[in-house]
Amino acid sequence: MKFELTILGSNSALPTSKRFPTAQVLNVLERFFLIDCGEGTQIQLKRFRVPMSRINHIFISHLHGDHFFGLIGLISSFSLQGRTNDLHIYAHSKLEKIIRFQLDILDSKLGFKLIFHNIFGKEIQTLFEDAALTVQSFPLRHGAMPCAGFLFKEKQRPRHLIKEMLDFYKIPIKARHGIKMGDDYLTEEGELIANAKLTFAASRPRSYAFCTDTAYFPRIVPVIKQVDLLYHEATFLKDDEKRAKSTYHSTAEQAARIAKEAEVGKLLIGHFSARFHDLSSHLNEAKDVFANTELAEDGNVFSILNT
Amino acid sequence: MKFELTILGSNSALPTSKRFPTAQVLNVLERFFLIDCGEGTQIQLKRFRVPMSRINHIFISHLHGDHFFGLIGLISSFSLQGRTNDLHIYAHSKLEKIIRFQLDILDSKLGFKLIFHNIFGKEIQTLFEDAALTVQSFPLRHGAMPCAGFLFKEKQRPRHLIKEMLDFYKIPIKARHGIKMGDDYLTEEGELIANAKLTFAASRPRSYAFCTDTAYFPRIVPVIKQVDLLYHEATFLKDDEKRAKSTYHSTAEQAARIAKEAEVGKLLIGHFSARFHDLSSHLNEAKDVFANTELAEDGNVFSILNT
Repeated sequence: MKFELTILGSNSALPTSKRFPTAQVLNVLERFFLIDCGEGTQIQLKRFRVPMSRINHIFISHLHGDHFFGLIGLISSFSLQGRTNDLHIYAHSKLEKIIRFQLDILDSKLGFKLIFHNIFGKEIQTLFEDAALTVQSFPLRHGAMPCAGFLFKEKQRPRHLIKEMLDFYKIPIKARHGIKMGDDYLTEEGELIANAKLTFAASRPRSYAFCTDTAYFPRIVPVIKQVDLLYHEATFLKDDEKRAKSTYHSTAEQAARIAKEAEVGKLLIGHFSARFHDLSSHLNEAKDVFANTELAEDGNVFSILNT
Repeated sequence: MKFELTILGSNSALPTSKRFPTAQVLNVLERFFLIDCGEGTQIQLKRFRVPMSRINHIFISHLHGDHFFGLIGLISSFSLQGRTNDLHIYAHSKLEKIIRFQLDILDSKLGFKLIFHNIFGKEIQTLFEDAALTVQSFPLRHGAMPCAGFLFKEKQRPRHLIKEMLDFYKIPIKARHGIKMGDDYLTEEGELIANAKLTFAASRPRSYAFCTDTAYFPRIVPVIKQVDLLYHEATFLKDDEKRAKSTYHSTAEQAARIAKEAEVGKLLIGHFSARFHDLSSHLNEAKDVFANTELAEDGNVFSILNT
């Protein structure tokens, strides 16, 4: 059962020839959630063999171009490919205006519905929820630009029934739902069978948090506490901490401090400034604070296994 | 003295992981003219080491997204790089609305002027002219979508003076302009010196024509007659001639027929449909009609030498 993140773009505002602007896709049980959509995202989706038609939900953190300029092209390509499924876009309300203005002036008729969901940006907001997953947004700190982080959390699934034991105790079907939810079972003879004898636990729910663009902002720590995987921007190195502060970005060390305080499983750093070709200093600086750090470079894939 | 075309993107509407959507840059004497600007153009400019700051004129053939979706990102990057030079954009007037709407709603202040020039599209129109070069647009045939081809032509430069001969005949400065323009010279002693003794010819002016997107449209032949280099779209193969006609595109064979009728120096074919990975059939089909044909694939460079 997959819970797998693919990095499509890892650079900050000015792309390089090797690193595209921000975009990622999270595969949760073969549903593909697109997070940010910088210019060239559709090209990266092809390159890294992501099944585009299985993307139904797109989350845009904020309206700097390097996080959404690829969206109009992706929508156009969906249309050319004959898409009919609804496409849900979660973003600041201005994005709907930008996209619809272009579709209207070019008289583009889409064969599918575009459904925009406004991210208010001032508090934690549940954007998506179904039986298996919730996606929430929470505010980051990126100057005057409203900017949202995203938290993807699997739900705790009910316990698994042990069929042989149910048969052994002749437990009727109507009692089974309660047992899945943790009830013990009282037989007709009055024997109490402990739930642990009848079931075993489902996998631990997995979680991913995406935090870009943002200055160092410890207020997010309780929100992302103990996520399995945290992506946090690390545009600069600590030598440039002043510049990071004035541009509302983070250093690699600050990203690692957030990871440490939040006790996450693994930290991924990205959104690198275009002037860095070699990223080993970013990695080392973060690892000094939080050892389980990796670079989130274009094409890298990070899986969280069921445990 | 350069006259050199670099292909930045060669694919039709749906990009592949190997071929970007349409964009090219023509280097004329170290001035870089950008022709179309599909998504990812700025990434390709970086990849192929084109000096972005030397692009002052951008020509957009038509308003299908694969020909202009990279423009807003390029403008944003110019702004981030601190550009101050005016940027001229030649396109259908709707493009100005699309770009300005986005800049306005995002409250983006540019440090340079964007100057839009409307291409009317119904006749030959001179878009740019200086001492060395003219750029004209001319109508192509792309269904209901107004679409322009572009013709880049160097001007015939005046003849070069042979300094030693001018000294020998003691020709005064005031006579020299006429001699550059082809005049003979009459000495004070009444001797007529033929211009060919005093000058040699400047290089032959070079020319490039860009024709995409278009159905087979022989009316362009007189306009592009005898250009050194012709780029003509070849979205399909002749097996798909009906489909080419109904979508207002051309086959490789049709592109070659235009090249042959126009007696061009070399034909480049591009704008390939995404379903073709191997392009040898396109090349062979065109070569059967017009031998001096090459594929215009991403990163290819075509120079026209001074002769």
